[in-house]
Amino acid sequence: MAYKNYLLLFTFENWNLEFENYHPIFYFRLTTFYYFEFMIVKTPPPPYYAVIFTNTRTDGDDGYATMAEKMDALAKEQPGYLGVESVRDGLGVTVSYWESLEAIKNWKANLEHLEAQNAGREKWYSAYKTRICKVERDYEFP
Amino acid sequence: MAYKNYLLLFTFENWNLEFENYHPIFYFRLTTFYYFEFMIVKTPPPPYYAVIFTNTRTDGDDGYATMAEKMDALAKEQPGYLGVESVRDGLGVTVSYWESLEAIKNWKANLEHLEAQNAGREKWYSAYKTRICKVERDYEFP
Repeated sequence: MAYKNYLLLFTFENWNLEFENYHPIFYFRLTTFYYFEFMIVKTPPPPYYAVIFTNTRTDGDDGYATMAEKMDALAKEQPGYLGVESVRDGLGVTVSYWESLEAIKNWKANLEHLEAQNAGREKWYSAYKTRICKVERDYEFP
Repeated sequence: MAYKNYLLLFTFENWNLEFENYHPIFYFRLTTFYYFEFMIVKTPPPPYYAVIFTNTRTDGDDGYATMAEKMDALAKEQPGYLGVESVRDGLGVTVSYWESLEAIKNWKANLEHLEAQNAGREKWYSAYKTRICKVERDYEFP
C-alpha cells in the first residue's frame, strides 16, 4: 500500500460578478494552486535496494534547487527506479529505492548525474555520506 | 570521519551598567542558549545495518516530543547502536544504524520501546514504513 499525504493551498479571485444569475460556484476562479506531495514510497516485497544519501548544504542556492528538480525527474526515468523519500531540515536525508545493485550503478554512472555529483562536491554540499543498502525486511502501518 | 554541524542561537541582556569601568565583555550575560546538532553519523566500515523509518504524523503533539526524546536517549544505551540521522519536514525520515540484526531485534523488543511503538500506532503516526537494511557499501565527502 502507498500512503500519500497532500498539502494543498488555494487562492481564488472573483471572476464575474456581473451575471448574478450565475450559480455561486462560477463566481470565483482558482488563481493559484500549490500542491505538495509527501509520500511513503510503495516498494515491492524485499529484497530490493536503498541508497541513503545524508548531507549538509553550503550556504545559498547557486543552482541547487534547479539541479535537484532535474535529477529527481531524471532518476524517475531510470530502469529499476522504485521511488524516493527526501527531507531536509538542516540535515538532508534522501533515500532512493531501486530494484537492483545494477540499477544503482547505472544511475551513479549516468552522465548528467555525474556532472551533478561533481558540482555537488564543488559547491552545493559541505559534507555527505552515501550508503548502499539491501533492504532485507519491511513492515508498515496501517 | 564525523561531520558535525551546529546551529547556535544566543540572546544576551544587559548585566551591570552601573560599573562603567567594567570591560565591555562583562556588560552582558548570556540569557538563553539554544544548541542544535545535526550530524552525519560516523559508522564503521560495512557491513552494518540500517533501519529506515519513514512516517507521517497525526496532528498535535499529544506527548510525542517527550516520547521521541526519551526513545532517543534509550536507543543510545542499547548494545550495537551506532547512531541516528533524523529529519522531519512534513514527511519524517529517521535512519538508525546498528552493528547487527540481533541488536535491531533486541531494540524492537525493548519493553519501553514496545510501549512507544503501540502508542505510535494509536495516536502519533498516521502512517509509517520500517525497512531493515544491510549496508553493503558506503562512501563520503569530503
